[in-house]
Amino acid sequence: MEEKETILVTGGAGYVASHVIVELLKSGYSVIALDNLQNSPLADEVEKPASLRRIEKLTEKVVTFYKTDISDEGALRNIFRLHKIDVVIHAVSFKNANQSPLLPLCYYSNNFLKSLTLLEVMKEYNVKKLIFSSSSHVYGVPQQLPISEHHPTGIRCPNPYGRSKFFVEEILKSLCDSDENWRVVVLRSFNPAGAHESGLIGEKHLRASSNLISYIVQVAAGRKERVTVFGDGTCMKDYTHVTDVATAHVKALDKLREGSFQHWVAYNLGSGRRNSILEVIRTFSILVRKRIPYEVVGPRRSDIGSVYADITKAKTELNWTPTKTIRDICVDSWNWYLLKTKGSTL
Amino acid sequence: MEEKETILVTGGAGYVASHVIVELLKSGYSVIALDNLQNSPLADEVEKPASLRRIEKLTEKVVTFYKTDISDEGALRNIFRLHKIDVVIHAVSFKNANQSPLLPLCYYSNNFLKSLTLLEVMKEYNVKKLIFSSSSHVYGVPQQLPISEHHPTGIRCPNPYGRSKFFVEEILKSLCDSDENWRVVVLRSFNPAGAHESGLIGEKHLRASSNLISYIVQVAAGRKERVTVFGDGTCMKDYTHVTDVATAHVKALDKLREGSFQHWVAYNLGSGRRNSILEVIRTFSILVRKRIPYEVVGPRRSDIGSVYADITKAKTELNWTPTKTIRDICVDSWNWYLLKTKGSTL
Repeated sequence: MEEKETILVTGGAGYVASHVIVELLKSGYSVIALDNLQNSPLADEVEKPASLRRIEKLTEKVVTFYKTDISDEGALRNIFRLHKIDVVIHAVSFKNANQSPLLPLCYYSNNFLKSLTLLEVMKEYNVKKLIFSSSSHVYGVPQQLPISEHHPTGIRCPNPYGRSKFFVEEILKSLCDSDENWRVVVLRSFNPAGAHESGLIGEKHLRASSNLISYIVQVAAGRKERVTVFGDGTCMKDYTHVTDVATAHVKALDKLREGSFQHWVAYNLGSGRRNSILEVIRTFSILVRKRIPYEVVGPRRSDIGSVYADITKAKTELNWTPTKTIRDICVDSWNWYLLKTKGSTL
Repeated sequence: MEEKETILVTGGAGYVASHVIVELLKSGYSVIALDNLQNSPLADEVEKPASLRRIEKLTEKVVTFYKTDISDEGALRNIFRLHKIDVVIHAVSFKNANQSPLLPLCYYSNNFLKSLTLLEVMKEYNVKKLIFSSSSHVYGVPQQLPISEHHPTGIRCPNPYGRSKFFVEEILKSLCDSDENWRVVVLRSFNPAGAHESGLIGEKHLRASSNLISYIVQVAAGRKERVTVFGDGTCMKDYTHVTDVATAHVKALDKLREGSFQHWVAYNLGSGRRNSILEVIRTFSILVRKRIPYEVVGPRRSDIGSVYADITKAKTELNWTPTKTIRDICVDSWNWYLLKTKGSTL
């Protein structure tokens, strides 16, 4: 196999990034992962976070790791000096959309401000290819469904999380306008959920997660009493398996190499399906053969109703098709939990 | 006179801020001005910039000055520790909209990123009243004219300057949503122009200015050959005298004190009139009794056509009325130039 490119993944110990790294390694890319380990449960993870060690076991490949914050300009420069980096996958993010209205400065600082330092250093070292892990939250309250990439962004975003992602997208647009050597793919994921089918990697902080599936897992495991259902439970959401999200990142790398590539392009990463919260609870319940207690409590201020994607563009232009269903998401999430806590799977 | 509040003005050596400080001092406020003097023509202005010294002469009042960058958290903390600050007027800004597409990271970093540090420190010291000097550029390409505050913002902003202002406005909104103790007035100025009627303060860098009037002054003075007119010269713009913009900032302070004040509010600061570029050139030409050569060269990519404000809201709610005309702007700009270079006025 010919030598593949070297990809720097920011937020490399994070949920989506971990799955992206698995797919990159499987496709033969060299990976450098960067993380400040701020969200790491173990303070002694100074060498290499557990998630990356499990990834190495799973793929039998090595990941180069730097414990550093992307706002640390000096450290970033060192990394760009030491390695010939071809593309950056920028996946640093606080991602609890519902928590973000309470901590707006924190979200803007982490998700947006730090991106500027990264872009400055990339520019300095003439690394001008970037894949940005964005979110469906940039669309805010949908004006029409399903949401295509033509849907306006940045308007009626009810939370700083979505706004911070939108801001980064806009900066990337300005960069591409200012210098035609930049090539940027923006990937807008719709509710990434689930875990790797091996059960070896998944969302670390089930307890703190705002992800519905992680919440259901906690209830099924008896660690939480019931699922709190905001709204009336009938809102249709688009739960996208994190492995599908990850494979799209690899497809985006192929896209960046195309001669005809047009500087800045955004793709929706959705499942191509939709499910109500109550349907998800039911699916999970059948799977684990347990009643999952839930309580319907009415909408939160930051809720935005039904949201699901039109994924025609990603299918056509990235040659990507999501292959996993909501059942896969439930199975893999439960197995990830079981393996982590009990050493067994379904 | 009872003791008035202490106002911290960021970017205090800048064009708009200088005029704001004059009006604050005239109204009896104590002023602390902050500036990194990055745009200062003289590197030896370490004590107090010339503009502030002229302001002190003009008002016979003292301005406390700190040469510091608002991204310097430590220095900011010191200032907030030393002084009981009541309100911050945040006027730090690179403001050349036409230059900004070439230097996007620079604009986002200076106009946006640094605001986050300021807000963090304000929060820490429980100073939660802010007036933000924003710009008509947040409206982007107008969807209808005149532009009222209901006009969408952040959409079709053709330049990073406008986007960076929009981003700050959005962060301030998030802040007010997260904590009801914040009180924010956003002032969206439409082409601030002109100079103080004393001829003592005005725009420092006539040569580097993207301001049409400053450009005309350069041509009238024989320092530039001709005015380059982008578009066809018939676009209607709203040139607002910088002194009118400044008095609105003082009115906004009164607004912040009102018991019924609603957390976050934006006002257009326009002249209530509109003039085409060719009209402005003609007005100036008559005033200085000279032909002002110009060349029509077609639109730039960052041009957004006619832009003028509906100022009903500021008139009604701030009890503010602009009093100066385009002729005043021309007279004051010319006098500022003459006094600076020749020691005489019209």
